[in-house]
Amino acid sequence: MLTSAAHEPTRVIDAGDYGVTIGAAVRHEFATLIAGAAPAHHYAVISDDEVGPLYADPLVASLLRHGRTTQHRMRAGESHKTRETWSRLTDELLDAGCGRDTTVVALGGGVVGDLAGFVAATFMRGVPVIQCPTSLLAMIDASVGGKTGVDTAAGKNLVGAFHPPSAVLIDVDVLRTLPDPHRRAGLAEAVKHGVIADAGYFARVASLLPALVAGDTPAILEVVARSVEIKSGIVKSDARESGRRKILNFGHTIGHAIEQASEYTLLHGEAVAIGMVLEARLAERIGVAERGMAGEIEGVLLEAGLPVVRPTSTDAATVLGATRHDKKSRSGAVSYALPSCIGTMAGAERGWSIEVADSLVLEVLA
Amino acid sequence: MLTSAAHEPTRVIDAGDYGVTIGAAVRHEFATLIAGAAPAHHYAVISDDEVGPLYADPLVASLLRHGRTTQHRMRAGESHKTRETWSRLTDELLDAGCGRDTTVVALGGGVVGDLAGFVAATFMRGVPVIQCPTSLLAMIDASVGGKTGVDTAAGKNLVGAFHPPSAVLIDVDVLRTLPDPHRRAGLAEAVKHGVIADAGYFARVASLLPALVAGDTPAILEVVARSVEIKSGIVKSDARESGRRKILNFGHTIGHAIEQASEYTLLHGEAVAIGMVLEARLAERIGVAERGMAGEIEGVLLEAGLPVVRPTSTDAATVLGATRHDKKSRSGAVSYALPSCIGTMAGAERGWSIEVADSLVLEVLA
Repeated sequence: MLTSAAHEPTRVIDAGDYGVTIGAAVRHEFATLIAGAAPAHHYAVISDDEVGPLYADPLVASLLRHGRTTQHRMRAGESHKTRETWSRLTDELLDAGCGRDTTVVALGGGVVGDLAGFVAATFMRGVPVIQCPTSLLAMIDASVGGKTGVDTAAGKNLVGAFHPPSAVLIDVDVLRTLPDPHRRAGLAEAVKHGVIADAGYFARVASLLPALVAGDTPAILEVVARSVEIKSGIVKSDARESGRRKILNFGHTIGHAIEQASEYTLLHGEAVAIGMVLEARLAERIGVAERGMAGEIEGVLLEAGLPVVRPTSTDAATVLGATRHDKKSRSGAVSYALPSCIGTMAGAERGWSIEVADSLVLEVLA
Repeated sequence: MLTSAAHEPTRVIDAGDYGVTIGAAVRHEFATLIAGAAPAHHYAVISDDEVGPLYADPLVASLLRHGRTTQHRMRAGESHKTRETWSRLTDELLDAGCGRDTTVVALGGGVVGDLAGFVAATFMRGVPVIQCPTSLLAMIDASVGGKTGVDTAAGKNLVGAFHPPSAVLIDVDVLRTLPDPHRRAGLAEAVKHGVIADAGYFARVASLLPALVAGDTPAILEVVARSVEIKSGIVKSDARESGRRKILNFGHTIGHAIEQASEYTLLHGEAVAIGMVLEARLAERIGVAERGMAGEIEGVLLEAGLPVVRPTSTDAATVLGATRHDKKSRSGAVSYALPSCIGTMAGAERGWSIEVADSLVLEVLA
């Protein structure tokens, strides 16, 4: 049993083939946990130019007791989650002499996790990766489930691989340095977990919002742990997203399209918040959900300080066009994961994926 | 039971999760077999500018009966097996509107198979690939086993993924258009399969050499089938190369290094031929093999018209340096897969991987 400086209990949640350690001030034990979960000759710590200066040096210093350790950085932000950055970091690892016996450590938010995960997935046909998420969004959602990848001009995450981590290590204390908009953005995914799987959790997140926004440690530990439980439960049942895992895409088809149309000036969680409201309206419009559900979701997101309408800088037709490049597009039509009510998703009999005509999507985008 | 125009029986070898169809003139049935093994909304046929003009059009025409089909090409040759080509082809597929419901068809030699396989492995986190090898080397070796990837300046196949095909479809009739040096190069891997796993097969390949070089269909069918059996048996026992699969690397540590040092002017099979002779000498020198084994291997390779000495254009120190970047390098030392005699590999108790001092490697390179 690990203990933490903040006297909050450290939990380990079983995500299938790996554990998710969640605690406060537990980062001082990360090196030992990394060397235990994925022992290697060489540890390559990948972070970005915002997180790296804050947290990479102590981690590198403690990893050096376990093996050769090198530090690598990318520029922060979704616009750098590209094949070019992936390629440059891969070459850095090769130049540093990394071989197959390397463990990649992804230290940062969702962008670093996706990109460093893809570096690990493709480095010599795959080396282990440990995810150490430092943003609330990455803790709550992105670090669990094994999705890795990069964006291209055509859309988000169109290039990537499934590469589950050997462990996920979460120290919620690092959220103290997380900018406020990023904290709010992370809450969007917690709201999503309530909508898609647990009405009681949806209500609990709503009631905890003031504490969560204020950075209250017990509230954050509770939400991170429950979200990780929900997400890993879904992922365990369908790792490759051939069926039920698709429900995690709620809010993401329109969300990704708006995020792309905003040229990534919106944070991912912000775009997902807007996407959830619009997709919930879509669910009401096509009759899979009762009227009022979208409004309820919108109310909680507004209280979290998140945007809920499409930015005027984006164009409805452009957003519609971008949904067609979404990975979830099948057979030429765009499919959506839609709730029937808060806590329950519709379309189980249709593989959790509901085709919606462009004209209806345009209506909710208008 | 499939029948072929040449009245040779078509065989299907079980490679674990997929079948390897081997026949003469069986390519006219490829579209049906592809649509059966990996049905899709969109078929993306990737070939190169040598194989494409010969065989892609009829395949595309027949695939159009099963779904949308587009054709994509790369420039031929190992020097184009790069992240840049991968990136360009990925963008071509995106521009063509390919979604998750796409099957990639790799039509070409080992380079096309590796590159198109990596496109498939990373396209929207993985779509099915069908391997249709058109070179003897790719039929005998590269198309089976799920290794995909590209080269970087630091070495061969350093970036890639394990992505097993949904099927491998082999029509040996296309070897009629294969240039003679490529046919000979392919035989190097058949010789390797004999050395690492089956002394009787080694002798059989040696006795069939004149027929094989002349392009005799029954001889080629026999060798392709037996090599696929040997390789898929090894791969099934250890898909991720954590143990026994390493024996397939015999000849490849020095081989890859020489191939790279030659700036890819040597064909892969030619470099592997040289690599096998030098690694066999290494095995003799460190005492895991009896004297004479290397000479026996060298004799068969010479009879196949393959090179067996390091080209004078390459430098021993450069080749040694390149072995250190090989993926098989662990803990800073370079490991080799070495035979103890023809038909049997050494080092089972050491994970099929034997560390050899640089000084000894330099001696055999001298």
